[in-house]
Amino acid sequence: MATVRLISDDEAGADVTAVFDDIRKTRKSDFVNNFWRAIAVDPVLLKRTWEEVKAVMTAPGPLDPLTREMIYIAVSAANGCAYCAHSHTASARAKGMTEAQYGDLLSVVALAGKTNHIANAMQVPVDPEFDMASG
Amino acid sequence: MATVRLISDDEAGADVTAVFDDIRKTRKSDFVNNFWRAIAVDPVLLKRTWEEVKAVMTAPGPLDPLTREMIYIAVSAANGCAYCAHSHTASARAKGMTEAQYGDLLSVVALAGKTNHIANAMQVPVDPEFDMASG
Amino acid sequence: MATVRLISDDEAGADVTAVFDDIRKTRKSDFVNNFWRAIAVDPVLLKRTWEEVKAVMTAPGPLDPLTREMIYIAVSAANGCAYCAHSHTASARAKGMTEAQYGDLLSVVALAGKTNHIANAMQVPVDPEFDMASG
Amino acid sequence: MATVRLISDDEAGADVTAVFDDIRKTRKSDFVNNFWRAIAVDPVLLKRTWEEVKAVMTAPGPLDPLTREMIYIAVSAANGCAYCAHSHTASARAKGMTEAQYGDLLSVVALAGKTNHIANAMQVPVDPEFDMASG
Amino acid sequence: MATVRLISDDEAGADVTAVFDDIRKTRKSDFVNNFWRAIAVDPVLLKRTWEEVKAVMTAPGPLDPLTREMIYIAVSAANGCAYCAHSHTASARAKGMTEAQYGDLLSVVALAGKTNHIANAMQVPVDPEFDMASG
Amino acid sequence: MATVRLISDDEAGADVTAVFDDIRKTRKSDFVNNFWRAIAVDPVLLKRTWEEVKAVMTAPGPLDPLTREMIYIAVSAANGCAYCAHSHTASARAKGMTEAQYGDLLSVVALAGKTNHIANAMQVPVDPEFDMASG
Repeated sequence: MATVRLISDDEAGADVTAVFDDIRKTRKSDFVNNFWRAIAVDPVLLKRTWEEVKAVMTAPGPLDPLTREMIYIAVSAANGCAYCAHSHTASARAKGMTEAQYGDLLSVVALAGKTNHIANAMQVPVDPEFDMASG
Repeated sequence: MATVRLISDDEAGADVTAVFDDIRKTRKSDFVNNFWRAIAVDPVLLKRTWEEVKAVMTAPGPLDPLTREMIYIAVSAANGCAYCAHSHTASARAKGMTEAQYGDLLSVVALAGKTNHIANAMQVPVDPEFDMASG
Repeated sequence: MATVRLISDDEAGADVTAVFDDIRKTRKSDFVNNFWRAIAVDPVLLKRTWEEVKAVMTAPGPLDPLTREMIYIAVSAANGCAYCAHSHTASARAKGMTEAQYGDLLSVVALAGKTNHIANAMQVPVDPEFDMASG
Repeated sequence: MATVRLISDDEAGADVTAVFDDIRKTRKSDFVNNFWRAIAVDPVLLKRTWEEVKAVMTAPGPLDPLTREMIYIAVSAANGCAYCAHSHTASARAKGMTEAQYGDLLSVVALAGKTNHIANAMQVPVDPEFDMASG
Repeated sequence: MATVRLISDDEAGADVTAVFDDIRKTRKSDFVNNFWRAIAVDPVLLKRTWEEVKAVMTAPGPLDPLTREMIYIAVSAANGCAYCAHSHTASARAKGMTEAQYGDLLSVVALAGKTNHIANAMQVPVDPEFDMASG
Repeated sequence: MATVRLISDDEAGADVTAVFDDIRKTRKSDFVNNFWRAIAVDPVLLKRTWEEVKAVMTAPGPLDPLTREMIYIAVSAANGCAYCAHSHTASARAKGMTEAQYGDLLSVVALAGKTNHIANAMQVPVDPEFDMASG
């Protein structure tokens, strides 16, 4: 189910087709997953989002692509985003995530979920040692 | 502010003191941060939580300690846990996180927050290609 | 799937039927959607919730009905509530939301998700200029 | 800090004063906490919310008042609501919550936070045994 | 759908089988639900999580088992965890939760969700009366 | 408190100064709020985020600027983002939000929080009438 129709290749206008083509070329795969077909209802949002995904997830930088995917999964678990958990776990596997790494990731996500709930319940005051704002 | 009194070293009973000592020994630091002083109101919860933190965050495994801290920060951002964001950013820095790595982490957390909200708003149907349940 | 049986018209007692009738009359439609059939297991909760929905969403006020539905969708996206995202997107369309308006809404929801996660990760201190509490 | 001015007794109009009076009478205390002084900027919202709080939290029913407060704390921890965690922990204590009960509550909240994050990360399919929708 | 294959009894190694056996023995039922079959991909996480569930949810303590399950449901609702809401509502029913108790629980969860969102929107300052940190 | 030092005008490099200047020019105000001074630790993230904010929040489109700010507040309430609630409530006021409109906004946010929590607790099945995916 979804709140919008998913845009097939045949229905895509020129601006949507250009993004779909870039997704295929960047990923070296013919597969365009449903997230892009859904937000294609707004071509500006589609283009802006894809360009950010391409820049943040694939550009060289201090974190390697697999670490980025695991951080993404962690946020998706906390936000309860079913689509994102599925798609980024698949991406992480495609980038080489082993089952042992996935298990380690889940252990950290689980522990963070646990301690986050305790800290939020008790409203533990932040130690001044952790403050960086005043330099 | 907090919902409980923070337990000082002087007030700590034998079971709490034993955990505080192990925290100091494991971290090679005399500093016991407020989270532990807060949950020390329930010594069983204190012990169980510390043992899980020690096992998950410090034991050797497929993910290095810094990657684990960054995953922790990602969950804490999504959960809006002020204490956890502060304490684990400090931990990540203590484990060598550079400002460039932190910036990269924030970029992924921000992008995931964005796309999670789109996927949740549109309720994008999960592509069957991402399903692993049926093997 | 659900955690309760959905109450059909035939099973509804007098108190539930009275609410179902008012839903039909208020909305000028015979359709009673699953949310109401689910919470009908508790007739007091059903009545209290419907009366609040009717008062907040349909009464004349400073915000027009479509703006209210879009605010509702925004909250539902952030909460990861699948049912709510579906039902209130349908309501917003029934109240005239165009695809362009929906795209604009999604852009704001996405941006807010992004910046919320950054602000929560960095725990940015609130500027005193934004404080209204002290008048 | 807050996004609105807090309404003092002197500034309160007749409709706000009527609610503040009922809060004082119901709770047998002169103290009107900030939540009510904040939402008093919208007297209709104030009245509707107070009436729901009074009905849900204080009316006799199948759950005792302390159990209700503990459920409230659990939701507040998951939502990261600082004000709510503080105020309802105070309420729970006023209704007799012992430190041992609070510790037990925190243990369940922590465990639920942990397993929720795992289930959300893995998107575990719901067992058909747990479905009640089809009766 | 899920991000992992669910481990059947036939595929389970010795460490996983030992946990499955203990789940069956503790619950006096042959049924091992999908959550355990999913996290069985990481036997250490499986064992650690099951031991915490057993300790927190079944050990005698100041809160009775049904109260614990209702607190669990409350957290799961706030986190939007579909699996957890289903499985713990089933557990609560198995421990005797009546429909009237479930309705009362839902009323509190709903009210807490409502007031949490108001307090978070207005950023109501915590009354000093609610602070316990300074003893 | 924050996890980073806030970048003052004096410390800003050329790329940060360029964004700060554009913020001042776009808003016709000398004030650069803390969010931008915090993310200035990563000039690329700063530039990308400011450009998205400028495009989404200020460009002409089907939703007027005030409606967009109210949607932003709604998301921030659900995410428990204190900074975002403060800053966007200030923005909404600067764009003309009246106290009556703010009260109406809060009523919808509160109601959505309430019904989201019920729907998530009961896992109400989405009515097929709300599905748009199959066209």
